[in-house]
Amino acid sequence: MIDVEKEYPQIDVIAVGAHPDDVEIACGGTLAKLVDQGHTVAIIDLTDGEPTPHSPGPDVRLSEAMEAAKVLGVNKRITLDLPNRRLFDSFEARVMLAKEFRKYRPNVVIGFGNRTPMASPDHWQAMQITDAAVFYSRLTKWDETFDHLPVHTIGRQIYYKIAFEPIQNVDAPGTFVHDITGCLERKLDSIRCYQTQFPPKKDYIFERVKGAAALIGSMAGYSAGEQFFTTRAVGTPDMMDLLYPETRDYTERNALKRSSVE
Amino acid sequence: MIDVEKEYPQIDVIAVGAHPDDVEIACGGTLAKLVDQGHTVAIIDLTDGEPTPHSPGPDVRLSEAMEAAKVLGVNKRITLDLPNRRLFDSFEARVMLAKEFRKYRPNVVIGFGNRTPMASPDHWQAMQITDAAVFYSRLTKWDETFDHLPVHTIGRQIYYKIAFEPIQNVDAPGTFVHDITGCLERKLDSIRCYQTQFPPKKDYIFERVKGAAALIGSMAGYSAGEQFFTTRAVGTPDMMDLLYPETRDYTERNALKRSSVE
Amino acid sequence: MIDVEKEYPQIDVIAVGAHPDDVEIACGGTLAKLVDQGHTVAIIDLTDGEPTPHSPGPDVRLSEAMEAAKVLGVNKRITLDLPNRRLFDSFEARVMLAKEFRKYRPNVVIGFGNRTPMASPDHWQAMQITDAAVFYSRLTKWDETFDHLPVHTIGRQIYYKIAFEPIQNVDAPGTFVHDITGCLERKLDSIRCYQTQFPPKKDYIFERVKGAAALIGSMAGYSAGEQFFTTRAVGTPDMMDLLYPETRDYTERNALKRSSVE
Amino acid sequence: MIDVEKEYPQIDVIAVGAHPDDVEIACGGTLAKLVDQGHTVAIIDLTDGEPTPHSPGPDVRLSEAMEAAKVLGVNKRITLDLPNRRLFDSFEARVMLAKEFRKYRPNVVIGFGNRTPMASPDHWQAMQITDAAVFYSRLTKWDETFDHLPVHTIGRQIYYKIAFEPIQNVDAPGTFVHDITGCLERKLDSIRCYQTQFPPKKDYIFERVKGAAALIGSMAGYSAGEQFFTTRAVGTPDMMDLLYPETRDYTERNALKRSSVE
Amino acid sequence: MIDVEKEYPQIDVIAVGAHPDDVEIACGGTLAKLVDQGHTVAIIDLTDGEPTPHSPGPDVRLSEAMEAAKVLGVNKRITLDLPNRRLFDSFEARVMLAKEFRKYRPNVVIGFGNRTPMASPDHWQAMQITDAAVFYSRLTKWDETFDHLPVHTIGRQIYYKIAFEPIQNVDAPGTFVHDITGCLERKLDSIRCYQTQFPPKKDYIFERVKGAAALIGSMAGYSAGEQFFTTRAVGTPDMMDLLYPETRDYTERNALKRSSVE
Amino acid sequence: MIDVEKEYPQIDVIAVGAHPDDVEIACGGTLAKLVDQGHTVAIIDLTDGEPTPHSPGPDVRLSEAMEAAKVLGVNKRITLDLPNRRLFDSFEARVMLAKEFRKYRPNVVIGFGNRTPMASPDHWQAMQITDAAVFYSRLTKWDETFDHLPVHTIGRQIYYKIAFEPIQNVDAPGTFVHDITGCLERKLDSIRCYQTQFPPKKDYIFERVKGAAALIGSMAGYSAGEQFFTTRAVGTPDMMDLLYPETRDYTERNALKRSSVE
Repeated sequence: MIDVEKEYPQIDVIAVGAHPDDVEIACGGTLAKLVDQGHTVAIIDLTDGEPTPHSPGPDVRLSEAMEAAKVLGVNKRITLDLPNRRLFDSFEARVMLAKEFRKYRPNVVIGFGNRTPMASPDHWQAMQITDAAVFYSRLTKWDETFDHLPVHTIGRQIYYKIAFEPIQNVDAPGTFVHDITGCLERKLDSIRCYQTQFPPKKDYIFERVKGAAALIGSMAGYSAGEQFFTTRAVGTPDMMDLLYPETRDYTERNALKRSSVE
Repeated sequence: MIDVEKEYPQIDVIAVGAHPDDVEIACGGTLAKLVDQGHTVAIIDLTDGEPTPHSPGPDVRLSEAMEAAKVLGVNKRITLDLPNRRLFDSFEARVMLAKEFRKYRPNVVIGFGNRTPMASPDHWQAMQITDAAVFYSRLTKWDETFDHLPVHTIGRQIYYKIAFEPIQNVDAPGTFVHDITGCLERKLDSIRCYQTQFPPKKDYIFERVKGAAALIGSMAGYSAGEQFFTTRAVGTPDMMDLLYPETRDYTERNALKRSSVE
Repeated sequence: MIDVEKEYPQIDVIAVGAHPDDVEIACGGTLAKLVDQGHTVAIIDLTDGEPTPHSPGPDVRLSEAMEAAKVLGVNKRITLDLPNRRLFDSFEARVMLAKEFRKYRPNVVIGFGNRTPMASPDHWQAMQITDAAVFYSRLTKWDETFDHLPVHTIGRQIYYKIAFEPIQNVDAPGTFVHDITGCLERKLDSIRCYQTQFPPKKDYIFERVKGAAALIGSMAGYSAGEQFFTTRAVGTPDMMDLLYPETRDYTERNALKRSSVE
Repeated sequence: MIDVEKEYPQIDVIAVGAHPDDVEIACGGTLAKLVDQGHTVAIIDLTDGEPTPHSPGPDVRLSEAMEAAKVLGVNKRITLDLPNRRLFDSFEARVMLAKEFRKYRPNVVIGFGNRTPMASPDHWQAMQITDAAVFYSRLTKWDETFDHLPVHTIGRQIYYKIAFEPIQNVDAPGTFVHDITGCLERKLDSIRCYQTQFPPKKDYIFERVKGAAALIGSMAGYSAGEQFFTTRAVGTPDMMDLLYPETRDYTERNALKRSSVE
Repeated sequence: MIDVEKEYPQIDVIAVGAHPDDVEIACGGTLAKLVDQGHTVAIIDLTDGEPTPHSPGPDVRLSEAMEAAKVLGVNKRITLDLPNRRLFDSFEARVMLAKEFRKYRPNVVIGFGNRTPMASPDHWQAMQITDAAVFYSRLTKWDETFDHLPVHTIGRQIYYKIAFEPIQNVDAPGTFVHDITGCLERKLDSIRCYQTQFPPKKDYIFERVKGAAALIGSMAGYSAGEQFFTTRAVGTPDMMDLLYPETRDYTERNALKRSSVE
Repeated sequence: MIDVEKEYPQIDVIAVGAHPDDVEIACGGTLAKLVDQGHTVAIIDLTDGEPTPHSPGPDVRLSEAMEAAKVLGVNKRITLDLPNRRLFDSFEARVMLAKEFRKYRPNVVIGFGNRTPMASPDHWQAMQITDAAVFYSRLTKWDETFDHLPVHTIGRQIYYKIAFEPIQNVDAPGTFVHDITGCLERKLDSIRCYQTQFPPKKDYIFERVKGAAALIGSMAGYSAGEQFFTTRAVGTPDMMDLLYPETRDYTERNALKRSSVE
């Protein structure tokens, strides 16, 4: 059995996208925030996302992606060798992704949570591949299949919806808004790295990202937010902490509260 | 202006019911848990709940209610003088409840969140009264109306659904499950205090409460839980804390996680 | 019978709020747009909205409201004499509002569409009053009750949700986004008129309004939008016009479409 | 690059079904209406739909389909060479359909929007193929794959649900009812062309189609309607036009409205 | 205590409407079917429904209502003395209705289940009154209030939605379709009795009722149906009976099934 | 054509799972109840479910499965030769399952109804395979493909959700709760047979199954229940029977009802 603890760093959170830039748009602020909080974070792109109209090719896109990763501060970015535009949920794709999970042992996996009509069908396939890989990562008795990488159980899987509007009508037991105040600028910068994807005439995208962050944030009382849905109900052993998450010092909490009174 | 800080203790959480025993059934475990965690907690019953079939009268019901409050460990139980069976949302009822909020300055108010077909229409009226009183509590320029009790802004309002099944189809931006492991027995005992309401032939109620606690808890990974819905989205500045609320020590967290691996 | 056509101007669209500024926040952009398109528009506030914390009194609030109306360009603003903070659905309130409908004969009435937890209970009552008044407006054989104002049938009633996030989970057969591009600045200015309500420390409200307009607009492809829900399904005898509402000239339409191609 | 403008007529709307008769049942009235309004319309059946119990074979079914197309007045009907009963979302199927989109450059594509339990699994696969083909149609840098057919961006994609009842519980940002008054008879006639599929003992189907058209139409105020759901919110720059789509002449509109008053 | 068993006949099902004709439109077929099956059935109208535009007055409307009751074959029709157009949920209204429930001891109560925008606000109030009266009927210790009518527990309460389209988006744990095949003509005839409400120019209403019955019926496999929602989940101790309700003789069931095979 | 009536017993209900133990957990109580009621019942596992962590291999798992079947009393258990952990919806898998349906001619098929995030992706594939096989079973003109097994039309297909909480947010026209009172112990025993899957440290699973049965049952008034969703609306020609399914003897029914009165 491979000694993964020796060979690979442990990564707290892995975000999976179909193409470089999916993850930045969907949850770039969250990744930057997690990095700020001292967590290790990685991005896995299932494909290199190429070709696209204005990109000279995979090398340029890849260097944009690496630049974006640097802006967010994430520890690692991995591009799998699955085919852009023709991604299909398959045994091979599942195993390829699950191997990365076994190597880097994430506590949380973030991924696509829906079909995206009018946009790439790769997104829907990516969701199915990610769901399966999260499960494959913890299955024993598959040493050969997994090149002797030991099993790893991922504690939590959460989903993003790459559209800008708040999540609704999903078949999920819970949703939450993650406060990305202070990280929105880095999110925008990470998207700006993709100059081949967002040439000046597509600048409106940045206004939309800002609008979405402001609105979704305001749903939970933050200046900027990103929303996720969960595979199990949002739970807490400490209700006061869930309702007033900014502080655990109750004197401070009351002061906070009072200052928000009109 | 009355010096409420001198006259009345500050209460962190107030749970409002229409009749004594509503709050115990809906969220008794949560109240016991909050007490354990060092919060101050009160129950306000809008009416005395009488008459009912097997009760000799309000005095007995009241003493049952006081006994139940003691079992839960709450700091205070107030019975308002509104009429059982004929509760209606009215200006007077709203002010009566809001006065209590101004006196005890809660951070959180918990109340009814829905109509309850086949059961008391008082529940639906109680929800409307509570909604209004939460707002009335923070309105300035009403000194006369409020006997010179100063304004108080309640930071959070959450809802319970008194049915046993999980919350669904509510028009709410968020839901969460509160872990009441370790407090279920006290919840059951508090309900048992109402001997006039739950004579031996109604013992099946205790099995239902246990079943509901087990099932709702399991939705979020707990042995026992109670569920609430919220007036704004569930938000967090610390996603890892929301997803792994049991611990903030990441080494401990990983150990926890590992032990739950098959 | 009173000759309303002689006594009162016909108004195409009437927006009903509980307090001055409700309508501006909920649908100010829509009202400005309707004015631009040559429709006559009125605002009816059920109450004068006073007292509020920083307002010296009803006169100042009223002059702010009149200023806001002027910014939007609406033809008329009426403040009914119903009591702020203690609005209740009642026969008298219904008739009072329906009289205005009979006088001004609107084709469309816009009003509150939901409870607003943590905010004023007047909103929920306003919805019930508006629903009833729309119906009362067209009932015959009530000459005395209505001071001999003739009946008027309102063709369409639509609802706003005063929260900033997109509409979801409402029991309604349809929703739509109204393009308010070009009118957002006037909407913001109309809200700014309420200096007693939005002092500098509440400036964040303007960012939220902008964020919401951007996000809701983007859901239907516009720079800025406001969303409504309807009392019957959205229908069309011209599907192409519904899907490509910007133009009926198909050559122009295709050109439009082509320019939006990547 | 192929000069598609020279080789193929431009088609405004393409409706995609899995089997001949899907499109007639789901949206035959809409297609007839679009033809009446001067749009060019085509039907693409992914398979020939054969074998079925009472059909002597593909030739008869095909001639029924051509007859149905003639009844509806559509400009073109294309039958792709994908296998009935064993349709699967695949790269080849997606490209095959997208080629037709590139040739005929539709502004709108209508297709399946859901699984259809108890009926053919081909429907669910057809939805996935159509989703992907709409995207493939606009992808650059695929000249070889697409036989040098130039890219084409489809402006709008909408969905039908082949069941008779109104659309509900779909994860979609909008729905609308299309008025097919005056086209219902042609819809019924087009279905009647499929004598091999609807022998006399299945005549009840025609009553159901009529019942559904009447009920769905009445939801938006029409004698007969068909309902669709959309991939983005229903939006309008002209709210009065959306609410009163029958006329843009306001004098006429008011007359219309008045005549509908009791 | 009054001996209700001696004074009043027991009624199996009571349908409650706000105005004469509500019940006929909402569930006339169901009432006729119940009568056919040997159940006793009554209608309670909370008001006399007058005035309306073309009615000479309450006497004519009442005689229409009595005629309609005769067509349906129901055992009793009661018109309460509550005010049309100004119905409000009140203690007196609740008690008035509950007295009738105590007299006639129904097993099932059917009533309004929703607000009805653009139509009478009496419907929404009727729902609240009916909900409360169902509860009041079983409350002990109210002898004076109830003129010594003994308590009666109503086993089941179900709701209708007076709109023609299928029920959706209701906060209810269950819905079902009642087969009214063979009773649709009587339903239509009962509505036709209201000549003051449905003069010839409103004949389209009959097409809508037929369309709705056909479509709703087809959702469960019947020629005609009416739909209801329930206050508790639809349950069965005999799943085969629920799924194949037409027969309990399995040989017959299989024969039935076989004949429906293509 | 094979004479299936001679070669294979007719089976009333077939429950399909991906792995041995799926069906026991999802609907074991229902299967035991159906057996008690005299129906013939079979279980089809699409795969042998192996390997799993603590199982010595397929033989042991298979014998556990056979033991569980015996506990439930079902007539037959079939394990198809499809690959665990790598199940995909494919033509071959569909035909393999449909052949069993043709052989055993079920009236009802029960199967997976959803994706199961964090658990096996085989479940989602199983749903698609089962949907297709139900359809394939009744298709004519496939004699070769089906080894001359004659067509069989399955009358009803219903779905289970393998999670413990009540069904919500599914795109389905109906749901119902099946009373499994008296069969819960056998359900638990059947799960206990899988000692390789539920070693002592996983004993909490039994508490969850009991909690879920109690809660779901209580939603419809039973001590224990299992819930399903349906492919068409729940319908009934006998509403009283649906609402009071325990008895058809009305005298008895009233007695029953009366005894449940407080």
